Amino acid sequence: MRSPVLLMCLAVGCLAQTPHPCKSPPLMTGSLTVSTQNEKFVAYARYMYDAFGKRIRFKEIGSYENRTFDVDALLLFRERVVYKIDYRDRSCCKKRLGGHFHPMVIPKNASLLGQAVLGSSSGPGQGLLVNTWHGELEGEEIDKYMITFTEFGCIPVSALHHTDKFGWVLTSFFNNVLGIEDPGQFIPPPFCEGVQLDEDDEEPANFYSMFF
Amino acid sequence: MRSPVLLMCLAVGCLAQTPHPCKSPPLMTGSLTVSTQNEKFVAYARYMYDAFGKRIRFKEIGSYENRTFDVDALLLFRERVVYKIDYRDRSCCKKRLGGHFHPMVIPKNASLLGQAVLGSSSGPGQGLLVNTWHGELEGEEIDKYMITFTEFGCIPVSALHHTDKFGWVLTSFFNNVLGIEDPGQFIPPPFCEGVQLDEDDEEPANFYSMFF
Repeated sequence: MRSPVLLMCLAVGCLAQTPHPCKSPPLMTGSLTVSTQNEKFVAYARYMYDAFGKRIRFKEIGSYENRTFDVDALLLFRERVVYKIDYRDRSCCKKRLGGHFHPMVIPKNASLLGQAVLGSSSGPGQGLLVNTWHGELEGEEIDKYMITFTEFGCIPVSALHHTDKFGWVLTSFFNNVLGIEDPGQFIPPPFCEGVQLDEDDEEPANFYSMFF
Repeated sequence: MRSPVLLMCLAVGCLAQTPHPCKSPPLMTGSLTVSTQNEKFVAYARYMYDAFGKRIRFKEIGSYENRTFDVDALLLFRERVVYKIDYRDRSCCKKRLGGHFHPMVIPKNASLLGQAVLGSSSGPGQGLLVNTWHGELEGEEIDKYMITFTEFGCIPVSALHHTDKFGWVLTSFFNNVLGIEDPGQFIPPPFCEGVQLDEDDEEPANFYSMFF
């Protein structure tokens, strides 16, 4: 009985030596910072990510062209709407959400740049094994990208992507935990009920226009 | 006997809750990348660091203003010289080294920006606990800086500093191990023996002029 199991383990072990594009856990809560090469935009956000329900909630504070802002947004990709929520004024704005839900995933055609240990592998708790991938996206606002995910758990660590508007944009993820701390955050608050869809904008909001 | 030990452990535990500026291990080998906001400079280097002997060796390849370069340098701060070594031509250039040895250390007057987990704390091997510090250096080429070191081991992860010449400069450290893989790398190669000190440069080389 032992040798087939051993062989299988060895085979899996060998296959696991080359990192493959991976998919992040479907439920995550964490923080991120965004900063741009031209220094026009800088932000800090708490995010909740639900790939099952195709929902993202994020609360962001930042500065755009030297003006500070804060955004509390609930993106419901299934219903194709985004709520911008203001608890202080108990006001709510509902807009059409353009684009599809982008799961946190390494694109299948991404190229592996390399595997590395952040920190050190010399002692326990001193290092983190990560894989860095790069590639190009076609027909999106983003063209070139470079993304780093952990080898174990496929957790995002950082993403560098190029945009015409900002030059290079660096997103750093941290304090990620598996799961959703409060699923109620994916339900629009009571004062959003009955709010009419705001059709003013020429272009429908998408995930990136939320950030910028 | 038990309670004093327990009390001491608790005291140490409590003290350890607030990160304090730390000093990196005295012997390290690793890799780093440097990139600048104005895209003029990008480099990859392997480094060896000996804080006991105040010696640094690094082998760097990169691009400066769209021209590629490679540097193999041995910095001996005690003797205040730097050797630029070329194994292909078996040539060697010896210059005066300005400035003092900068140990890899969080400056004592640095402010803690925060503690964070890169990756996730939800599973083993998925996260890395780091501390980020910021501050300003006076009378140096660098003014503002932000540095991230691991909580356990005090290993450098990244450094962001501002320079007039390049704007923001990002240095990312990885694949660090404790110790020196080859101490012979700190001894100038035979073809460096008897080389005269090159006094041509107006300004003596320093650690940063090696990089840039």
